[in-house]
Amino acid sequence: MTPIITAFAASPDGGRGLARDMPVRWALEEVGLAYDVRPVSFAEMKQPEHLALQPFGQIPTYQEEDFALFESGAIVLHIAQRHGSILPEHSDARVRAIAWMFAAKSTVEPVIVEREAAMLMEKQESWYEERLPILDQRVGVRLSQLSQRLGEAEWLDGEFTAGDLMMISTLRRPAAADLLKTFPNLSAYVVRGEARPAFRRAFEAQRAAFLAGAGASVQ
Amino acid sequence: MTPIITAFAASPDGGRGLARDMPVRWALEEVGLAYDVRPVSFAEMKQPEHLALQPFGQIPTYQEEDFALFESGAIVLHIAQRHGSILPEHSDARVRAIAWMFAAKSTVEPVIVEREAAMLMEKQESWYEERLPILDQRVGVRLSQLSQRLGEAEWLDGEFTAGDLMMISTLRRPAAADLLKTFPNLSAYVVRGEARPAFRRAFEAQRAAFLAGAGASVQ
Repeated sequence: MTPIITAFAASPDGGRGLARDMPVRWALEEVGLAYDVRPVSFAEMKQPEHLALQPFGQIPTYQEEDFALFESGAIVLHIAQRHGSILPEHSDARVRAIAWMFAAKSTVEPVIVEREAAMLMEKQESWYEERLPILDQRVGVRLSQLSQRLGEAEWLDGEFTAGDLMMISTLRRPAAADLLKTFPNLSAYVVRGEARPAFRRAFEAQRAAFLAGAGASVQ
Repeated sequence: MTPIITAFAASPDGGRGLARDMPVRWALEEVGLAYDVRPVSFAEMKQPEHLALQPFGQIPTYQEEDFALFESGAIVLHIAQRHGSILPEHSDARVRAIAWMFAAKSTVEPVIVEREAAMLMEKQESWYEERLPILDQRVGVRLSQLSQRLGEAEWLDGEFTAGDLMMISTLRRPAAADLLKTFPNLSAYVVRGEARPAFRRAFEAQRAAFLAGAGASVQ
């Protein structure tokens, strides 16, 4: 059965592929798995039916017959583990790739999302301007450490893995993009990720879905 | 070979088991694996030797002969996958347990850490008091959703899994504990986790290490 993912019915990113369905689409394209998309509105995301699939009222979800999954990191890992090709064969390298997935989601993304939350929700507050440098600095520390580890390598640990996919997806968030310019090797790393044919296909699919104002069926 | 983990040489939590070595210790105790602890100071954590193991200059790390791993989520998953007993046998349930690990680390923990960061680092700022309700509300939303999902169940999805281990570890953070009182089922869930013999052993080991002012060797 073709897996079904959920995505925003009307993505607030305007088709820039910044929502969390994007890494899932990208992973599906990397492993060559056809999928369907079921668009959900913000109102639907808060309804019991969606909360049964996604307890935090977010997208994406992933369904395969009776099996349902949430959390983009877990979905990408599931796709990678079941269908191969973006996780190394060797078990040590495989576990390290998973460590990079966790690093993306739990060490790098939170400081970026914190900056983003301030930019979206606290811009009118009296403290916004004064506080922004604190947030910049938190993001800057993580980017600097990541830049140092990546060095001149193409990917984080040998071949391209699901770890790179999650990390690049995280670095693509606009609140990171501002600060990324200071780290040319990270900027180039993101560009390399975006140049992958699977990324392009995923990007075009979400963009087409946005332009159509509804979900797209990708075969 | 006995695995070696790193932990704070002098944990700022005063032996309350709130640092990120705690979930790793807990997982090792759950699967019954002896381990050694190598304490690292804050100065050592920023040195190239430690950064080679942990690119973000944090603890814990995990070493088994030549194999080294970082990110508490990835380490717990590795321990669970290799040594069994805190991941379900059935593949669907196993993947869902991993989803709860990602949910703990990337959906629940970030809002808690954001509140914590404000409490630790912005308490002197003019905006602190006015901004705190915004942070409380962000944490409150996630706790409310989690509370609703857990309901009257003992654990998040059937038997106790590595997903519960990570979620309970996250909810134990003091910035969540304040707000947890509003959700009796979550408070009871944390208490159930802390009552597990493996948790107790891990807790006592980190506490002994703190009191000794150095790492402990747990056999």
